[in-house]
Amino acid sequence: MGGIQKKSKMFKIKKISNPALKNPILIEGLPGIGNVGKICVDFMIDNLEAKKFMEIYSDSFPSSVFVNEYNLVDLPKIELFYKKSKNNDLILLSGDIQPTEEHACYELCNLILDILEKFKGKEIITLGGIGLSKIPEDPKIYCTANNKEIIKKYKSPLINSNIFGVVGPIIGVTGLLVGLAEEKKMSAITLLAQTFAHPTYIGIKGSREILKVLDKKLKLSLDLNSLDKEIKNIEKEIMLKTQKIITFKKKDKKQETSYIG
Amino acid sequence: MGGIQKKSKMFKIKKISNPALKNPILIEGLPGIGNVGKICVDFMIDNLEAKKFMEIYSDSFPSSVFVNEYNLVDLPKIELFYKKSKNNDLILLSGDIQPTEEHACYELCNLILDILEKFKGKEIITLGGIGLSKIPEDPKIYCTANNKEIIKKYKSPLINSNIFGVVGPIIGVTGLLVGLAEEKKMSAITLLAQTFAHPTYIGIKGSREILKVLDKKLKLSLDLNSLDKEIKNIEKEIMLKTQKIITFKKKDKKQETSYIG
Amino acid sequence: MGGIQKKSKMFKIKKISNPALKNPILIEGLPGIGNVGKICVDFMIDNLEAKKFMEIYSDSFPSSVFVNEYNLVDLPKIELFYKKSKNNDLILLSGDIQPTEEHACYELCNLILDILEKFKGKEIITLGGIGLSKIPEDPKIYCTANNKEIIKKYKSPLINSNIFGVVGPIIGVTGLLVGLAEEKKMSAITLLAQTFAHPTYIGIKGSREILKVLDKKLKLSLDLNSLDKEIKNIEKEIMLKTQKIITFKKKDKKQETSYIG
Amino acid sequence: MGGIQKKSKMFKIKKISNPALKNPILIEGLPGIGNVGKICVDFMIDNLEAKKFMEIYSDSFPSSVFVNEYNLVDLPKIELFYKKSKNNDLILLSGDIQPTEEHACYELCNLILDILEKFKGKEIITLGGIGLSKIPEDPKIYCTANNKEIIKKYKSPLINSNIFGVVGPIIGVTGLLVGLAEEKKMSAITLLAQTFAHPTYIGIKGSREILKVLDKKLKLSLDLNSLDKEIKNIEKEIMLKTQKIITFKKKDKKQETSYIG
Repeated sequence: MGGIQKKSKMFKIKKISNPALKNPILIEGLPGIGNVGKICVDFMIDNLEAKKFMEIYSDSFPSSVFVNEYNLVDLPKIELFYKKSKNNDLILLSGDIQPTEEHACYELCNLILDILEKFKGKEIITLGGIGLSKIPEDPKIYCTANNKEIIKKYKSPLINSNIFGVVGPIIGVTGLLVGLAEEKKMSAITLLAQTFAHPTYIGIKGSREILKVLDKKLKLSLDLNSLDKEIKNIEKEIMLKTQKIITFKKKDKKQETSYIG
Repeated sequence: MGGIQKKSKMFKIKKISNPALKNPILIEGLPGIGNVGKICVDFMIDNLEAKKFMEIYSDSFPSSVFVNEYNLVDLPKIELFYKKSKNNDLILLSGDIQPTEEHACYELCNLILDILEKFKGKEIITLGGIGLSKIPEDPKIYCTANNKEIIKKYKSPLINSNIFGVVGPIIGVTGLLVGLAEEKKMSAITLLAQTFAHPTYIGIKGSREILKVLDKKLKLSLDLNSLDKEIKNIEKEIMLKTQKIITFKKKDKKQETSYIG
Repeated sequence: MGGIQKKSKMFKIKKISNPALKNPILIEGLPGIGNVGKICVDFMIDNLEAKKFMEIYSDSFPSSVFVNEYNLVDLPKIELFYKKSKNNDLILLSGDIQPTEEHACYELCNLILDILEKFKGKEIITLGGIGLSKIPEDPKIYCTANNKEIIKKYKSPLINSNIFGVVGPIIGVTGLLVGLAEEKKMSAITLLAQTFAHPTYIGIKGSREILKVLDKKLKLSLDLNSLDKEIKNIEKEIMLKTQKIITFKKKDKKQETSYIG
Repeated sequence: MGGIQKKSKMFKIKKISNPALKNPILIEGLPGIGNVGKICVDFMIDNLEAKKFMEIYSDSFPSSVFVNEYNLVDLPKIELFYKKSKNNDLILLSGDIQPTEEHACYELCNLILDILEKFKGKEIITLGGIGLSKIPEDPKIYCTANNKEIIKKYKSPLINSNIFGVVGPIIGVTGLLVGLAEEKKMSAITLLAQTFAHPTYIGIKGSREILKVLDKKLKLSLDLNSLDKEIKNIEKEIMLKTQKIITFKKKDKKQETSYIG
C-alpha cells in the first residue's frame, strides 16, 4: 500500500492496519443531500462492528477542526473500515467532508479506486440522496451504474433504475466514483434515496430504504430496529460537522453561535 | 496524435479513431447563452451523421456525472466528431460543459488548437448567443473574427459584422478560441445569434439563423425542417445537464429536485 | 532557520533576529471572530515589550496594502515576537490576516510548526472567539486541545473544557494549528472566548477573560488595567485592516468610502 | 529582456520593440475604482503620443475576448508604452483588466518590477480611486508611498499625505506594486483621487486632479483641455470591457444584453 502515498501529493494516508480482504466490495457514504450516504455507512460501521484500517487527510479539506467526544480536536478526515464475512468482505468509506474543489474530488476518487485495486476489489456501491423540495413520506430508491450487469444484480422492487430524463447531475464522490470506476474496470452502482433537500436534514427514512436493500442483497444481517436509536449520535455529529452556524446551548439560556475561530 | 496527451496534464484524451481529414474546418458549439452553439453543433452532428473520433475528459470539469439514455452514468466530456465531404471536411466540437476556471479555459482552447493543427486545419467557426433581456422575435446574427478575410468569406445579408461598441466581452471557449487562434496562424470567426439570456432557454430561433448561414456557406445540405423535431432531444439533454435544480417528475405528483449526491 | 525558507514556496520569511529561546511556548492570535485572538496577542506584545524577530509574507495573502502610522504602505504580513522570562520564554504570533484558501492555511500552520520546532518549542496556545448572536455580558471561556494533559495544565474555574456537542468547527489557524500539532508531537490548546459574531466587533470583554487566564497560568505580570487604554489603538488597526468598507472621515463632512484601488 | 519570459509561467510577454530609456518612471493605471487610474494613463498615452513596446497576456486573465474598433477580437491584455523626453523618460502601463486571484496579482506586480529593473527604472507612480458613496463635487487627492522622500518630491497643495487611520486597504496592482517595490529598492508612490464607488462610474473629475499634479511635477505639457473630448473614447472602452451586463443598442429599439458566449 506504500505506493499509494507517493501517487498523491494532495492526500495523506495514515494506515492503521493492513487487513487481508477477499475481493472486497467498497460502500461509500459521505456527507451530502439529506446525509443519506453518511447515515447508511455510519450505521453499518456501528452495527457490523467494522474495524478502521485507514484515514485520509488533505490540505484540500476545510482548514478547520472538530471537537470529538473526548473534548479534543480532530482534523477533518475520510475513514476506511473493513468487515470480513463469509458472504462478502466489505470496505466501508465514511468521513466528515467532501472535497469542494473539482480537481480535489477527482483526485480523491482516483485515490479511493487505487486503494480498492490494491485489495483486488471489483465492485463499488455509492450511496446518496435526491433532494426534494418537501419531506417525502414514502421515499423511493433510484439507481444508476457504470454497467447493466450490476443494475441487474441489485435489482429489487424497491429500486427504480429507469431514471434517464428524471434526474440531473449526480454531484461529488457519490457520482464521480461511479463514473471513474470504468477506467479501472470496476463495476460500480449508486443507490439514491429521495430525501428533503435542506442542508442539515437527516434523511433517516430514505436511509432505511437503502439499508433494507443492502441488507438483503449483501446478506448483512443488520439490526435495522436499532437505526432509530443510533441515529441520535449520527445526527449530533452531522449537526456539528456540516453546519457552520449552529445553536450554542447553555443551561441558563439559549444563544446562537455562528463562526468560531 | 500521441503528442497531444503529453502536452496537457489537465486534460485526458480518449482517441476513438484517427480519421484522415483534408484541412478540416472546426465548428465549436458548447453550452452557453441560450445554448445556441450547442444546439447548432448537436443538430449538425445528427443531421450530417458525423462520426465521433475523440473525447476529452478533465479534472477541471465539474466533479459530477450525468445519467445517459441507457440509464448509465457518463463523466462530463467534450466530444469531437468528423464529417468528410467533397466541399469541406468538418470537425464538430460539442460537449456537456465549459471549463469554469480561467486557466482551464485557456488550456482547453490551446488543446483544441493543437488538435486542429495536427489535422492541418486552418479555419475555426465558433457559435454562441447574445443574451437579451426579452425573447427576440426575429433574432439577428452578428459576427467578429481574428481577421478581415474570414469575415468577408462568411459575409451574408443575415450577418451584421459592424459590432464594435455594441457587444461586450465574448465569454468562454466561443470567444477565447477565436482570440487564441491567431498565434497558430489560424483563421477564426464567431457567429453569435441574439437569444434570451435565461440560463435554460433553448434558443432555437437564433440557432436556425446560424444554421442557415452555415448550410449555405459550407454547402452542408442540412435538413433544416427536421430541426424542430430533433430539438426535443437536445432540449431534454440541456435541461438535464446544465441545470443544478431540475424538476423531478413522478407520475402521481410533481416534486422538485434540487441537488443530488 | 535557513531551511524553513526552502520548505515553503508559498511563504516568504524575513528574519529580523535569531533569538536564543528556551523551549518557548507559542501563543497565536490572528484576526477572527470578535478579533479576540488578535486583541489578546497584540496587547501582550505591547505590555510585555516583546521583540519582533520574524515576518512572513505570502502571495496567498490579500493582494492589497495597508497604510501604517507613518503614512507609508505595508504589505499584509504575519509577525512573530519573542519575550524571554524566567518562567516561560514566549513566541507571540500576530498578523494582519488569515489565509483564505484551505491549502494555504494548512501550509501556513505547518510552517509555523516548523519554526517552533527549530526553537525546540513543545507547546502551543491558540486564541479565538465563539461568535454569539448577541453581545455577551459575561463572556465565558472554553477550551479544547490535542491532548488531555494540556487541558489539565490550563484548568481554571474560568474555563469550560466540556464542549463536545456544544461547539462546531473551529475555523482557520486557531483550530488547524492545534489539529496539526499532533504530528509534530507538540502539545496544543485553544482558548475560545464568547463574543459577538459581527465581523468588526472588538471583543474586549472576552479578550480580558482569556488574558486573565494566561496571566495567571504563565505568570506574565500583565498590566490588565491598561487594556482599555491600549484597546483604542488595536481597534483602529482592526477597523482599517479587516474591513473593505470603511468610513472615510473628513473634517467638514462625513463620507463613506468603499473600495480603494 | 528575454530572461523575463522564463521567470513567469503565468504570463506571456509579447515584445514589440526594445526602446532605449534613461531611468524611466513607470506610471500605472489599470481598471479600478471610478476607473481613475485607467483614465489618467490612457489619456497620457494619447496626449503624449506614447509608443507601445510590450503586451502581457495571461491564462489568469478572464477567459473572454473583446471586440476592438476594427470589429475584430482582442485577448485581454496589459500594455506598456514609452515616452522619451528631456525631463523624464516614462513607461505608461495600461490594460483591460486586473488579475482577480491573489497570487496572480502578486506575480504580475513582480513581473512589472522585473521589467522596470531591466530598464534601470527607479521610480513608480500608481494611480487609483477612493470610492465614496456619493459623487464628490470637488474630489481631493491623497497619497501614500513606500518611503518619505518620494512623498516630499510629489508634495503639492493638491495632495493630502496624512492618511493613516483614514483609508483602508489599497487593493490590487495600484497598492501591491507600491508594497512590493521596496524589495527591489525602488521608490514608489500611489496617488488616489476621491471618486464615486459605482463600478462603471467614469471618475473624470478625480482623474483631472491627478493629471494636474503629474503634469506639473513631471513637466509633461499635457493638453488637459482635450480631456473632456478624449474621455468619450475611454468611457466607451471601459463600458464595453469592465461590465458583463451592457446595453445592446439597436437602431429600432432598445434591448439589454447580458452574457455573451
